[in-house]
Amino acid sequence: MTKHPFDHALLLTSGSSGNTFLGATSPAYWNMVGPFGGYTAALAVQAVMQHPALLGEPVALTVNFVSATNEGPFTITATPARTNRSTQHWVISLSQRNAAGEPEVAMTATVMTALRRDTWQANDMPMPVVPPISDTARDHRHGSPVWLERYDMRFVGGSIPAQFDGREAGSLTQLWMRDEPPRPLDFVSLTAMADVFYPRIWLRRAKRVAAGTVSMTTYFHASQAQLADVGTRYLLGQAQAQAFRHGFFDQTAQLWSEYGTLLATSTQLVYYKE
Amino acid sequence: MTKHPFDHALLLTSGSSGNTFLGATSPAYWNMVGPFGGYTAALAVQAVMQHPALLGEPVALTVNFVSATNEGPFTITATPARTNRSTQHWVISLSQRNAAGEPEVAMTATVMTALRRDTWQANDMPMPVVPPISDTARDHRHGSPVWLERYDMRFVGGSIPAQFDGREAGSLTQLWMRDEPPRPLDFVSLTAMADVFYPRIWLRRAKRVAAGTVSMTTYFHASQAQLADVGTRYLLGQAQAQAFRHGFFDQTAQLWSEYGTLLATSTQLVYYKE
Repeated sequence: MTKHPFDHALLLTSGSSGNTFLGATSPAYWNMVGPFGGYTAALAVQAVMQHPALLGEPVALTVNFVSATNEGPFTITATPARTNRSTQHWVISLSQRNAAGEPEVAMTATVMTALRRDTWQANDMPMPVVPPISDTARDHRHGSPVWLERYDMRFVGGSIPAQFDGREAGSLTQLWMRDEPPRPLDFVSLTAMADVFYPRIWLRRAKRVAAGTVSMTTYFHASQAQLADVGTRYLLGQAQAQAFRHGFFDQTAQLWSEYGTLLATSTQLVYYKE
Repeated sequence: MTKHPFDHALLLTSGSSGNTFLGATSPAYWNMVGPFGGYTAALAVQAVMQHPALLGEPVALTVNFVSATNEGPFTITATPARTNRSTQHWVISLSQRNAAGEPEVAMTATVMTALRRDTWQANDMPMPVVPPISDTARDHRHGSPVWLERYDMRFVGGSIPAQFDGREAGSLTQLWMRDEPPRPLDFVSLTAMADVFYPRIWLRRAKRVAAGTVSMTTYFHASQAQLADVGTRYLLGQAQAQAFRHGFFDQTAQLWSEYGTLLATSTQLVYYKE
């Protein structure tokens, strides 16, 4: 059986210490000047998931994209900063060697893992009413970055503007999505999917200004078992901006299973040039 | 002139290395089993603001409350992981010595700072229409934790339930707030104020279950100059939950100046017991 491109891209081997993992970027998830940020974020989660000292499952992740990740090998360090009875806090970094052979940090992250328990529960962010998947078509775009081919995206609102004509509008995008080819949902793929939304400023301004995520935080509301239940079915994702100022804007996101279970909520800060 | 209690609580002196700062918890910002989390978050920002290598102003902060901070001295390490032309990424931790004299991490954080530039701007999260400050009264509560006395809070919606009778409702709180006594707004006080909202689950369920923030992310949309313009005037704050499941819920927050400038957006993940 051939390994899924995402699993191939996430392949980490043990490094020089128990907290060190070695990997390499994958052309399959390449964006314009570096890998797709969702993939880089997933690497942080993958390192934690592979760590022998792991307690529980991911509940919170913050990733900082501190510099473009270059094509080639990288080292991830994932250190359990504190392990409590039912929670664990991780500090993570990804580094690459520069031309002089010195390690330089390209990503920093923190992850919280926890043993999930049954408690009272409520979903105050119900899935919006949108057209069913069967009424949608996969988005195909000529000349897009390679990583977009790794996702089956079906916009039901807020698609990438057909014309970048500077006509200002809202910033809400809603879409059905899944891995292409399909792959059973887990924490790493959910992490990546929380970052599939193109920069809100392109939609808001109908203008393609240079933009890139600088920090991203995702909370996982679903257990591993709930993700396994979703399997290869589509997720509904939604993203919307709050404020644009001084070269940075934020966008919030929610991801639901096809049956309305809120799987993850996310927020990110995005740099924009003008 | 007497130092404001917040400035007194945030006092950090230089430690053994250029990245190390020494401080001590303040009884003035004490919560139930540790300091008010907003104060602990502000310490991370304060260390960065005092660091001689600082580039720019805070734009993003994530704080993980990995263990209760004990009363007494602590050491903060703030390391610039990467400095770019106009942005800088920080990795921060706060540790205290345990009974055996060994350092234990109580907080981890990442901060991104940047040089702010004038760009196109928009506020897609306008300030809600609420009663003016003059129509509100300061909230006073018998037997509250000490830190609540450090804030003048004036609820205009979603106040702490008068009766914890288990009657389920929404989770939206809106309030006017400022430091008590008044103190000119800056990044550290804004950081703390993004965490003044009591756990949404108390409002949502009208039930006072054990709850505590485990991770918090704040994006600063205002410049230092804009915060200085706010001065000692009130902010309007708003917080609302998205999902409660498996012992954790998230709440999002927005803070505006009295005149409607969106100063910060925030999200946090909160542990709850049952």
